[in-house]
Amino acid sequence: MQILKLGGSVVTHKDEYMSAHTENIKRIAKEIAEAGSYPLIIVHGGGSFGHPVAKKHRIAEGMVDKSQIFGFSETHQAMVKLNEIIVDILLKADVPAFAISPSSMLYTNGKRLNELDTSIVKEYIELGMVPVLYGDAVLDSEQTFAILSGDQLIAQLSNDLGADRIIFASDVDGIFTDNPKLNPDAKLLKKVSVGNIEANVGDTTHTDVTGGMQGKLSEAAEAVKGGADVIMVNAFEAGRVKAAIRGEKVIGTFLTL
Amino acid sequence: MQILKLGGSVVTHKDEYMSAHTENIKRIAKEIAEAGSYPLIIVHGGGSFGHPVAKKHRIAEGMVDKSQIFGFSETHQAMVKLNEIIVDILLKADVPAFAISPSSMLYTNGKRLNELDTSIVKEYIELGMVPVLYGDAVLDSEQTFAILSGDQLIAQLSNDLGADRIIFASDVDGIFTDNPKLNPDAKLLKKVSVGNIEANVGDTTHTDVTGGMQGKLSEAAEAVKGGADVIMVNAFEAGRVKAAIRGEKVIGTFLTL
Repeated sequence: MQILKLGGSVVTHKDEYMSAHTENIKRIAKEIAEAGSYPLIIVHGGGSFGHPVAKKHRIAEGMVDKSQIFGFSETHQAMVKLNEIIVDILLKADVPAFAISPSSMLYTNGKRLNELDTSIVKEYIELGMVPVLYGDAVLDSEQTFAILSGDQLIAQLSNDLGADRIIFASDVDGIFTDNPKLNPDAKLLKKVSVGNIEANVGDTTHTDVTGGMQGKLSEAAEAVKGGADVIMVNAFEAGRVKAAIRGEKVIGTFLTL
Repeated sequence: MQILKLGGSVVTHKDEYMSAHTENIKRIAKEIAEAGSYPLIIVHGGGSFGHPVAKKHRIAEGMVDKSQIFGFSETHQAMVKLNEIIVDILLKADVPAFAISPSSMLYTNGKRLNELDTSIVKEYIELGMVPVLYGDAVLDSEQTFAILSGDQLIAQLSNDLGADRIIFASDVDGIFTDNPKLNPDAKLLKKVSVGNIEANVGDTTHTDVTGGMQGKLSEAAEAVKGGADVIMVNAFEAGRVKAAIRGEKVIGTFLTL
């Protein structure tokens, strides 16, 4: 079983409010269909849908003021809209996608998924479908509500369902020795140990309410420890997502123990 | 706690494929906000969104052919789209709505909800929110997938959460002695015993994959037996939904034991 993460930078235009990157989504949907390697779970980020709404209403910090419940719901609505676009495109590309709403099936305890009943996700997979989940605004037992990042959800799904491989698809080739946008001598690291995530992974310059690249790596580390192969690839380069799903040689960064 | 059912004939133009009746939804959202009576759960039907898609792919009968999994997902997508429109309008009208996706949290056994973990719905209610659910395409343990009607969902939620009142809002005043569209002498019945649902309730002339009015009444009977007051009102008449939510005198049909 594989899990494909489609980062917010891949599925949305990060600088345009609630603008889906339909061109990217269509090409990637085609690559997934062509790879034809199932079982597969897809989890996507929020990009310019979920993040700005969650930030505006301070959802990640939990409830301070009762009026935030509207922002909490609006954050979820933004994610539903993005998920709807992605699932519609996947279905058209012949990928048997099925939308799963995290906030309808789970909640966090102090921002963390302590236990997750993955049985319904498993049922969709056994039927040959591709569950499509996302980072979401969810109920939280300590701070009333919270933001569950797609990355945390992936780590938990991976460990609960025993994923063989997780593919993180974003807008960069992987992890570099330095910020490649500022330093032309920066080199792509083909392998990075999760015990050594002090590497310069570049600061995310966009609105991200889920902890950016450092947060991503620490969640990915949990999945690596759980036994999954983890690879980071650039989804803007045609063919890389397809190659990664097929387990073929591909430019990217492998995370190791 | 009250449950409001918004029938497919109320929230969609039944004769126009995937056309939301936004005018109706907006007025009803305003009535719900003005009534200001919480806790409240809203469940809506599929109308011209869910029903034609489910019918085309024969989802209600379960899986016969593997290719139906696309139609199964498309049925759910249609319902997500309608739900999104309704929740967006409710939020704008100041109703703290939150979208809950039935197929993400439950499945049926032989088309029936034998047990339903309502804890997450309860959490949203305790937070002062209004969960908005809907009839959905769901997994089924016997026939792979099935259509869960909003009415069956309501009966189960009512009995599990102990609803005081259920309001079924549709496009007719209630139950008549004869079909009022054909017989001008037909009279509205103010009270109908659920033990006597042989009354002429009129055949639904539209695509309905969930059993029409007879199906609705037999689900409602379960809720009445469970102790809830059940009233049927015409949501096309301004003020009736509001009056019903407030527990005021209103034209409609009360269901009794």
